[in-house]
Amino acid sequence: MKNILLSFCFLGTVSGLRAEDGHQLWLRPHAATPVTVVAPAKNSVLLATARQELQQGWQGRAGATVTLALKKDKAIRYDGFRLSTQSVQANTERGILYGVYELLRRQQTGQALADGISNPSYEHRLLNHWDNPDGSVERGYAGQSIFWRKDSALVVTKRDQKLWQEYARANASIGINGSVLNNVNASPLILSAEYLGRVKAIADALRPYGVKTYLSVKFSSPVLLGGLKTADPLDPAVIKWWQSKAKEIYQQVPDFGGFLVKASSEGQPGPQDYGRTHADGANMLADVVRPYGGLVMWRAFVYSPSDKDRAKQAYNEFVPLDGKFRDNVIVQVKNGPVDFQPREPFSPLFGALKKTAVMPEFQITQEYLGHEIDLAYLAPMWEECLQSDTYQAGPGSTVARCTDGSVYRQAHSAMAGVSNVGLDTNWTGHDFAQANWYAFGRLAWNSSTKSAQIAEEWLKLTFQNAAAQPAASAADWNAKFLTPVTQLMLASREAIVDYSMPMGLHHIMSATHGHYGPGPWWGPPGMRADWTPPYYHQAAANGVGFDRTKTGSDAVSQYHEPLASQFNDPATCPDQYLLWFHHLPWDFKMKSGRTLWDELALHYDRGVQQVRQFQRTWDQAQPYVDAERFGAVQNKLRTQSGNAVMWKDACLLYFQQFSRMPIPAAVEPPMHTLEALIIYDTPPRPPRPARQP
Amino acid sequence: MKNILLSFCFLGTVSGLRAEDGHQLWLRPHAATPVTVVAPAKNSVLLATARQELQQGWQGRAGATVTLALKKDKAIRYDGFRLSTQSVQANTERGILYGVYELLRRQQTGQALADGISNPSYEHRLLNHWDNPDGSVERGYAGQSIFWRKDSALVVTKRDQKLWQEYARANASIGINGSVLNNVNASPLILSAEYLGRVKAIADALRPYGVKTYLSVKFSSPVLLGGLKTADPLDPAVIKWWQSKAKEIYQQVPDFGGFLVKASSEGQPGPQDYGRTHADGANMLADVVRPYGGLVMWRAFVYSPSDKDRAKQAYNEFVPLDGKFRDNVIVQVKNGPVDFQPREPFSPLFGALKKTAVMPEFQITQEYLGHEIDLAYLAPMWEECLQSDTYQAGPGSTVARCTDGSVYRQAHSAMAGVSNVGLDTNWTGHDFAQANWYAFGRLAWNSSTKSAQIAEEWLKLTFQNAAAQPAASAADWNAKFLTPVTQLMLASREAIVDYSMPMGLHHIMSATHGHYGPGPWWGPPGMRADWTPPYYHQAAANGVGFDRTKTGSDAVSQYHEPLASQFNDPATCPDQYLLWFHHLPWDFKMKSGRTLWDELALHYDRGVQQVRQFQRTWDQAQPYVDAERFGAVQNKLRTQSGNAVMWKDACLLYFQQFSRMPIPAAVEPPMHTLEALIIYDTPPRPPRPARQP
Repeated sequence: MKNILLSFCFLGTVSGLRAEDGHQLWLRPHAATPVTVVAPAKNSVLLATARQELQQGWQGRAGATVTLALKKDKAIRYDGFRLSTQSVQANTERGILYGVYELLRRQQTGQALADGISNPSYEHRLLNHWDNPDGSVERGYAGQSIFWRKDSALVVTKRDQKLWQEYARANASIGINGSVLNNVNASPLILSAEYLGRVKAIADALRPYGVKTYLSVKFSSPVLLGGLKTADPLDPAVIKWWQSKAKEIYQQVPDFGGFLVKASSEGQPGPQDYGRTHADGANMLADVVRPYGGLVMWRAFVYSPSDKDRAKQAYNEFVPLDGKFRDNVIVQVKNGPVDFQPREPFSPLFGALKKTAVMPEFQITQEYLGHEIDLAYLAPMWEECLQSDTYQAGPGSTVARCTDGSVYRQAHSAMAGVSNVGLDTNWTGHDFAQANWYAFGRLAWNSSTKSAQIAEEWLKLTFQNAAAQPAASAADWNAKFLTPVTQLMLASREAIVDYSMPMGLHHIMSATHGHYGPGPWWGPPGMRADWTPPYYHQAAANGVGFDRTKTGSDAVSQYHEPLASQFNDPATCPDQYLLWFHHLPWDFKMKSGRTLWDELALHYDRGVQQVRQFQRTWDQAQPYVDAERFGAVQNKLRTQSGNAVMWKDACLLYFQQFSRMPIPAAVEPPMHTLEALIIYDTPPRPPRPARQP
Repeated sequence: MKNILLSFCFLGTVSGLRAEDGHQLWLRPHAATPVTVVAPAKNSVLLATARQELQQGWQGRAGATVTLALKKDKAIRYDGFRLSTQSVQANTERGILYGVYELLRRQQTGQALADGISNPSYEHRLLNHWDNPDGSVERGYAGQSIFWRKDSALVVTKRDQKLWQEYARANASIGINGSVLNNVNASPLILSAEYLGRVKAIADALRPYGVKTYLSVKFSSPVLLGGLKTADPLDPAVIKWWQSKAKEIYQQVPDFGGFLVKASSEGQPGPQDYGRTHADGANMLADVVRPYGGLVMWRAFVYSPSDKDRAKQAYNEFVPLDGKFRDNVIVQVKNGPVDFQPREPFSPLFGALKKTAVMPEFQITQEYLGHEIDLAYLAPMWEECLQSDTYQAGPGSTVARCTDGSVYRQAHSAMAGVSNVGLDTNWTGHDFAQANWYAFGRLAWNSSTKSAQIAEEWLKLTFQNAAAQPAASAADWNAKFLTPVTQLMLASREAIVDYSMPMGLHHIMSATHGHYGPGPWWGPPGMRADWTPPYYHQAAANGVGFDRTKTGSDAVSQYHEPLASQFNDPATCPDQYLLWFHHLPWDFKMKSGRTLWDELALHYDRGVQQVRQFQRTWDQAQPYVDAERFGAVQNKLRTQSGNAVMWKDACLLYFQQFSRMPIPAAVEPPMHTLEALIIYDTPPRPPRPARQP
């Protein structure tokens, strides 16, 4: 392989004078020193990107030489790389790029750079954007879509291209190599020639950063867009329509990644409309994209209104189909069996599908974890799921190992995260929500990375040298900012669990306010039961919780032993899943010796007090943060603090109607009345509850 | 004097089965034992009332005989009485009635009954109702007016009469002997023949309980109602009109009490419109009612938009008129120099008017102390004012002694309270607001009564034996209910001061929400400055507070030495008046050693924590209270708790803009943002601040 010598002097003129509006994410510009880059003599956009990044960001020895080497090496998997202080070696151009980002990150965060290989846990590391063609974003809290817009929808501006490029660069820097550009509740429009033109423009912007483009498709597109009478996956005309559409797509986007499909789920059309199975539907599409090397990600988020336990249904529908899917189909499974709740046990499908490729789907956007208001660092939640032992192939069969190819052979592996990105200047609404985008990428690359390490990395990249008055010393910054704020991040998700749905409670949020805030009472007449909180908490005079034991819905039996038995017995079921699996009396004696009611109340209160501690931590961090982001986060923490109290008050006062037990004196007394909270939850939104007429 | 023997057996059948809806006030029915009443043989409604009360409420020895004796005794003053276990003796029939109520109260509250005389501190003890002819009540938080209504306004129903009688009985039981039936912002309508008919009906209902009827009059009534061209008090036609009107009134209500006048004040017409003085106006009306024994209460609540310090103006206007008023004029002075704030120093007019009868006006209705939501027991506030030493006639010249005739000779003495009564079933909205009606009466009768004693009395009368499950013993009830709830009441006003306007801050409430909640920022363009909070708090980078020192507005000099000097020096000025008299830097060193800013923040926080303690106290009192009132008060305390936080957050965040100092870590961090609080304070009322879109 021939190399050419490139030399470039980049003077450190990029200063900290830029407004810290968060738009730069974890890639804030900094002073760089000169470096010489030796790269393969190849006309490659990816290599050009890698070279440019090195030259813009080098913080190693001034005048050093770095060699980028494309060389086959069996020890290197997928887009992995081998790193040393002097070189980045990889099998693929993407690998080179990722190695460069890792090199620069280590320089910037001061991590030691030992020679060695870094391989990704998953072959495909994708963001799912729930973005609609009209520019809205389902469960998006950071403004409109960066891809689509309502007006002049098909005109691609320079601003669009710049933003898409920035987005792609951010993804590449953390190893994300795929992006599903539109909502899983897909509009058929997306497959129209007009929209495909825009898809091509987006793909062109993402490609230099190694980010592949995917689309969500509506299963009935042949009818809605193609004018066919059916979308039956076994109908030849339907197959032909999809083949022709695939050809059209690949003409525009030769490296198109494939389809993401939500079908026969929550009212979306699907193969079951024609008496076919999920496998029939998925396989048809898989066959259509196979010639191009495309993938089909088929979502397992299915449940029907009539079933007694929503948590069991995905398992019941998909396990019988195990082994029936093509090898370029990956079944995409949400981390928990219900729906992205603040805490769920892992979905029993993980490990149970043994002859099917399965990929975890996490939700980066904070639908149930406080939208753009609450500070929730989600890596601990994902880590908790990935490291859960399914026991499906013996001890150590963690969710991570059951999905990354370690336990079961699967042709493809992947991990998806529902993106929290929008047009807001800082991309994610809450400045700390950037950390979740970052953490998702880092965990998809290496599923065994610790949440704490990711948090520290992100904090360093995002906040170091951001204050008007720099820290007295690195030690000072570490002690006064990095350590306490890392602790804050690590505790943040558990605080939300505590003040909203502790001890296994789930799905008791407000429907009125878009799943923000408490709604344990919610359930308008005629509403399907499994969309209402009382279906999940089952609060009554005799107790609270969903009985999923063997004598209840028997969801416990979907878990492999010893879990089934452990979950089945309240004495061995972990407290954090207690009310997920059990309906227990209010005076049930907990391991702590307290009653269930007291324990519940103390959890709610602990969550509230925890947020106040976060506020104090952040307030004390003020000298180390630029005024803009400090103020924004401070204000959001204040609002979160009030909303935490609302959660606590609502749930305790609501449940107290059944428990008829006093709120323990150690718990902060409610500052809302139940009546006012319920009125507030009743649309249209009336005056705030604190001020009664 | 001849006596006739009356004997009546009243069996104790009145049980506790009645709903405890609060309508019975402190006069809840209870089992009574038989008593024989010996009363003067006189056809007297008052004596009949006294006799009936004894027979309905006697709890002494069964079969005892009580003698009611009308007998002149110089040791007995006004409507005072001499009490023994066997007899009530008085100069007046009212005195007999009051003695009977005292006798029964002592029986019911278990107070020892030593023989002795009880004389009222003030000759006239009046409620002022700010009720409008349309049935609305200015600053009323307990429903519409009990006297007036919009529809069929002039029809007197049996229900009206029953309610007026209950109202009169409640007043009589605590010694209130006068009632001003309408708002000081008076409608001229009230003097029309039609309305005077209703006034007569009300007077007829109040008379059997010794409550005299008064009216507020609009000074321009001769023009507005009489069709005259002027209301000049020196104009013969005007005088004649008033004479004729007085005659008409006294024909209907022979014992009519007189007029209450708000004139040349806050836009109300008055003598100054004709170049006359307050004395000219008051004296003209005084002359008009003198033949009938009537009084004129002339309010000193005057201020103009142009003056540099509103707090000084009443003094400046009225002191020069000292000695110029007729002896049947009483100048009615609010307790503080501004306007019924949670804490003000006493008005410097007290004691300064030495040749003029002066009466204190207190506000029972909680305009600035939490409407019907906050639990505020106001006796400590009134006690604080009454016991303030003015030094105007040497040490010991308390406000009480300067107004009750002890220090200065004045032909008449009186005390007024702005009523908190409305059509709500429990009369006052908040069950505990009844205590303020009660306390006002008790203090007007004996201005040296301790707040604690009044609270205990009221709690016993209002809550004893109210629970479904009676207390195990009297000692149990005292320890678990009476003592903690008395403490709660005694601390309640100071808690409000702490979380709303501590350390001498005043008038920083929201204008938008009817003076409920915080509004330190409030001041729409064009608004007269002395109606906006910034005029009063003067917060700026250099400090906070209103400079009323000798080098400031010099309001201190309206106080007699040693007060003037004491208030003038921040080192000697009591902390509780500090920012009333001083503008001080945020880092001013307090007596505690803390900065002013820290001290302020701690006060706000202490108020919030205090309300939470009230909640805990009340929750623990649950076994001792009927469910209805327990739940109502519990809910109000919850709402108050949230609103206390709003006060704290609003004031600290607002002032922090100027202080630029951190909120101390010991203080609970804010749960609102300043922006959201200000938006909430902007009409029309938007969604509650805790949930930002």
